Amino acid sequence: MLKVAIAGASGYTGIELVRILSAHPSARISMISSRQQKGLRFDDFCPALMRHCDLVFEDTDPEKLASSSDLVFTALPHEASMGMIPGLLDRGVKVVDLSADYRLKDPEIYGKWYSAHKTPGLLKEAVYGLPELYAEKIRTARLVANPGCYPTSVILAVAPALRHALIDPETIIADSKSGVSGAGRGLSLGAHFCEVNEGFKAYKVAEHRHTPEIEQELGILAGRPVTISFTPHLVPMSRGILSTVYSNLNKGVGAGDVEEAFRGFYKDARFVRLSNPGNLPVSLQVRGSNYCDLGWRVDERTGRLIVISVIDNLTRGAAGQAVCNMNIMCGLPEDAGLQEAPWQP
Amino acid sequence: MLKVAIAGASGYTGIELVRILSAHPSARISMISSRQQKGLRFDDFCPALMRHCDLVFEDTDPEKLASSSDLVFTALPHEASMGMIPGLLDRGVKVVDLSADYRLKDPEIYGKWYSAHKTPGLLKEAVYGLPELYAEKIRTARLVANPGCYPTSVILAVAPALRHALIDPETIIADSKSGVSGAGRGLSLGAHFCEVNEGFKAYKVAEHRHTPEIEQELGILAGRPVTISFTPHLVPMSRGILSTVYSNLNKGVGAGDVEEAFRGFYKDARFVRLSNPGNLPVSLQVRGSNYCDLGWRVDERTGRLIVISVIDNLTRGAAGQAVCNMNIMCGLPEDAGLQEAPWQP
Amino acid sequence: MLKVAIAGASGYTGIELVRILSAHPSARISMISSRQQKGLRFDDFCPALMRHCDLVFEDTDPEKLASSSDLVFTALPHEASMGMIPGLLDRGVKVVDLSADYRLKDPEIYGKWYSAHKTPGLLKEAVYGLPELYAEKIRTARLVANPGCYPTSVILAVAPALRHALIDPETIIADSKSGVSGAGRGLSLGAHFCEVNEGFKAYKVAEHRHTPEIEQELGILAGRPVTISFTPHLVPMSRGILSTVYSNLNKGVGAGDVEEAFRGFYKDARFVRLSNPGNLPVSLQVRGSNYCDLGWRVDERTGRLIVISVIDNLTRGAAGQAVCNMNIMCGLPEDAGLQEAPWQP
Amino acid sequence: MLKVAIAGASGYTGIELVRILSAHPSARISMISSRQQKGLRFDDFCPALMRHCDLVFEDTDPEKLASSSDLVFTALPHEASMGMIPGLLDRGVKVVDLSADYRLKDPEIYGKWYSAHKTPGLLKEAVYGLPELYAEKIRTARLVANPGCYPTSVILAVAPALRHALIDPETIIADSKSGVSGAGRGLSLGAHFCEVNEGFKAYKVAEHRHTPEIEQELGILAGRPVTISFTPHLVPMSRGILSTVYSNLNKGVGAGDVEEAFRGFYKDARFVRLSNPGNLPVSLQVRGSNYCDLGWRVDERTGRLIVISVIDNLTRGAAGQAVCNMNIMCGLPEDAGLQEAPWQP
Repeated sequence: MLKVAIAGASGYTGIELVRILSAHPSARISMISSRQQKGLRFDDFCPALMRHCDLVFEDTDPEKLASSSDLVFTALPHEASMGMIPGLLDRGVKVVDLSADYRLKDPEIYGKWYSAHKTPGLLKEAVYGLPELYAEKIRTARLVANPGCYPTSVILAVAPALRHALIDPETIIADSKSGVSGAGRGLSLGAHFCEVNEGFKAYKVAEHRHTPEIEQELGILAGRPVTISFTPHLVPMSRGILSTVYSNLNKGVGAGDVEEAFRGFYKDARFVRLSNPGNLPVSLQVRGSNYCDLGWRVDERTGRLIVISVIDNLTRGAAGQAVCNMNIMCGLPEDAGLQEAPWQP
Repeated sequence: MLKVAIAGASGYTGIELVRILSAHPSARISMISSRQQKGLRFDDFCPALMRHCDLVFEDTDPEKLASSSDLVFTALPHEASMGMIPGLLDRGVKVVDLSADYRLKDPEIYGKWYSAHKTPGLLKEAVYGLPELYAEKIRTARLVANPGCYPTSVILAVAPALRHALIDPETIIADSKSGVSGAGRGLSLGAHFCEVNEGFKAYKVAEHRHTPEIEQELGILAGRPVTISFTPHLVPMSRGILSTVYSNLNKGVGAGDVEEAFRGFYKDARFVRLSNPGNLPVSLQVRGSNYCDLGWRVDERTGRLIVISVIDNLTRGAAGQAVCNMNIMCGLPEDAGLQEAPWQP
Repeated sequence: MLKVAIAGASGYTGIELVRILSAHPSARISMISSRQQKGLRFDDFCPALMRHCDLVFEDTDPEKLASSSDLVFTALPHEASMGMIPGLLDRGVKVVDLSADYRLKDPEIYGKWYSAHKTPGLLKEAVYGLPELYAEKIRTARLVANPGCYPTSVILAVAPALRHALIDPETIIADSKSGVSGAGRGLSLGAHFCEVNEGFKAYKVAEHRHTPEIEQELGILAGRPVTISFTPHLVPMSRGILSTVYSNLNKGVGAGDVEEAFRGFYKDARFVRLSNPGNLPVSLQVRGSNYCDLGWRVDERTGRLIVISVIDNLTRGAAGQAVCNMNIMCGLPEDAGLQEAPWQP
Repeated sequence: MLKVAIAGASGYTGIELVRILSAHPSARISMISSRQQKGLRFDDFCPALMRHCDLVFEDTDPEKLASSSDLVFTALPHEASMGMIPGLLDRGVKVVDLSADYRLKDPEIYGKWYSAHKTPGLLKEAVYGLPELYAEKIRTARLVANPGCYPTSVILAVAPALRHALIDPETIIADSKSGVSGAGRGLSLGAHFCEVNEGFKAYKVAEHRHTPEIEQELGILAGRPVTISFTPHLVPMSRGILSTVYSNLNKGVGAGDVEEAFRGFYKDARFVRLSNPGNLPVSLQVRGSNYCDLGWRVDERTGRLIVISVIDNLTRGAAGQAVCNMNIMCGLPEDAGLQEAPWQP
């Protein structure tokens, strides 16, 4: 039985980690931490999980986290993660980091979009935890940087077409729409019920921090630097991301080439499902699961490829993918603890 | 491995049965039927369940259902169930009926609230499938009548107080609020998005068919006939029922007596959770699970007991409870396939 | 043109006052105040109202408020109102107070449910601003205490039956359900989108502060003290209150008596609409308007009257009723500025 | 007092027309028709409008419509409109058509996206009713084709940049998101509450019929044929459209040029509001009003202009714009009956 600790377990991502791990066949939660909720029983904090987790929140202390576990999930704010992780690795535990701190390879880019990186030396070692692209590296990693929710939905949407050079990378526009849980459990007017309800909106247009993360991975797939437009929107719903990703098809590329590229690229992917021709996925159809469902249209009028990608932002976009990474890092079946069907309706 | 069939698998209750049973450790779905969807693959009908169910809808034929399975779930409209069930029992399979056809013991009362009963002789044999009250009888039953969603929430809310004679049965008022999935997957203006959204309403006031079902069971608990007010309401949300149940406390009964009655009555109940003193349950905290969570207040100003009861109408109020009944009927652990934590948020 | 000021214009009630008053044919907003938003333009704070209000928030200063206006709406927190209002009255302006500070006649009851009253002498003078009951007194009042949202919905639901002695006052149970805007614009976990969505709940059971306000008015109608059960609930929607009010009918009272009492009591009421027999009102059908719509059932099985009452909590439950009171106090037509149809859908 | 009739008054657009026109200072509804609801009182059909409209639905008969009114709103399905309108015009009444039948100038394009046009001769005469572009022509028109909801939001978003040749027309991508009322009051699984709630989706990707309508108008603005990508999505909310419109800026164009183009283009527009620099509009801020609110970002990294446009699909996207067109056609102030502030929250 694998012992795992969760540092920062009082946000929505932390709760989702507890939900998934409390039913995991080969892992056991050994410690949960939260500075704010320290001393509180988890099931008093979150009565939904009564009988599923009776742990008490402890302080977020690296020594304690490391000594109680084989692997630590760090679900901490940006910058807090990079202050904690070197100490965890030094003590010999593996880490899946759910912050953005180790996702970017280039510390300068990190510095430009976030702040000065404190441990740039670790960036090279950290593995970007998107299993469809990096399963082999994840298998032997000490530190996995769990991808952002939006990047997961966008990268999986264009990977086959970029890998097969079917599209012009400079024309990629990702228009993404997310449920509100992506904004977290912290209070803000932007997540206040009456402001969200009937209030669809775009935010951080042309300046969202997930942009360089997407560009890094698309650049690797394309074999050259890629600059994209990425626009996030907030949908009045709790869970789910749908990304609509546009790009210009290269000359001579037809619907058959696209179909072949997608079917081939994902033929062994445990957690990617492709819509039947003519269908497009809806955010609801992956809720609560680790799936990314993909559908697409080749628009001959405009010469564009339009891909629709849906994930659950808390599961595939955060905690589920983190558990999947843990499974791979620890030699467990990729889908251990992640086999439940999506929640309908 | 138990083989089970689902007759009427294309409604929300049927989909929920497929979702739960497709992950059940000791049961396998052998057949699904639907007159409307006959010939369609289940995962074309419901893409959310891709990779979880690849069966094809067959016609709702008792011979086929019985020959392919050990137990049949009948998720058919009222009256259709009673036309089908005798034939299933005759062929030696067990039945969990999710309609109202076998819930009422008195065919006259059935006739008054529904229509003339076609197989009144079976009413005596059928067991009312509320495990907290009837686990022993369910264990040996051929036919279990799965309780209605509202009755489940109301009966569990008052059972301890009635059993211990703490309240006056003639003063019970159950004010219940349900998510829209309770109205089913069939189209109606009452479930049309723009009519429901921002449109809270009461319906079937003083005439809902779940009234006699609740009264029957409360009467058994009280040891004498009980007449109640029951008012259902529709909440703009997909899943969940919250019932607020009022009653006058008998003379001399205090908060301690109520606490003791609830803690005692449910001390071994696998699927009932009692809120900590001072807390009250919220519909969200049981979503997707088989739990019924209960909290209460003794109001000394008015001499009333007010109990708050929450369930997921599709899980505890229908498919989850049906699987729990199947487990008990077939000698499996009561919670087989039902151990997942509620979905948050 | 009447000059009116709004003290505390940055909450949802204040915004609703600005919305209504900015289109009022005989009133003009002369000043808005907010301690938090001081110095900000209203339409920067609330871009929805661009071109409807270009005022700048000023400090909540009684001298300024009084000198700029003929009437002041005080939409301040409890206790802040009673600190401000005597100074406004002394300066000769009329006041419509939207807090609870002047609703209760008995300072002891106020002290028990709120805190010690600072100006108990004014309680006798203040008029409870429910126009259906007190239009004559409102006409000549200096200070009107605008009713609470829940009390408005509950009092109007039972007034005809109590006035005509059709029901037993000791059996009244008011089960009320409110949209989230009733909780205000201030941030709280209880109004955080992901906690509300799919999360129906009861709150402050048997202890909500609107209870004594309802009891005071029902007591006056009944001609003797009345104690009721009042249970508020939170609905995942922005606006609207639906109250389901139960009571035992007195011996010999039939459906005709009830019908006659309601039709007679409200025959001249500008803002009460009675459902056609067989219909019940839905929260959506009054949204954005000053209407209270009522429907009812006489349940012969239980001998109970069940009344369904719907209002918009921000309009009839707060700002609309306040403007109606202003109209009456200032000799304007009762419905000036309040003639718009409800918003559908 | 202008007499107006509404043909097809039982859909959401028809109800919105009744709501607006029942409060119009210079128009009176003389007749409403609906084949389905014929004989029913409007306020029995829609109790929200009790006391605002006591008309009875009549049959949709051109003779009756024409004889009772000066102007007819045709809110009928596509194809039904073109069967009715010539007869109305022949009888001397003006027509505002809310269907798509007279929006496209080229009958071949209409035939390709809809069906063969029955009265192609009228297409030239019909005026496209977007007041910001065609106020002069609308003033003298007999027949105004009221724009589609999506086209209104998209055309207004790019008109200034196209007119000033700031962008490359071939790079325009309009990603639009609509509330569910756009799908109408007719029942469908796609508008069933439990399918919409938590179920964000794209639909009719690369094949929605509003595409040629947008392209026609953008082509006129650009002075040459334009082909765009247009993708509609369904948002779990009742009202509102937000369009995110991408295009490549021409060489040398900067943020100042864009600012100047928008401010200049809309400087006299009664119903267009431009966000302050740094702000972007939210769907909620125009709800219930005839405004189109616009905000934008010049993204120097990608060289793209991103415009965010919000309207209420039922008001500016249908009934409100239709009333505005009526006002202009009949010499009334453009904003008569349309002065109410948006509904918040």
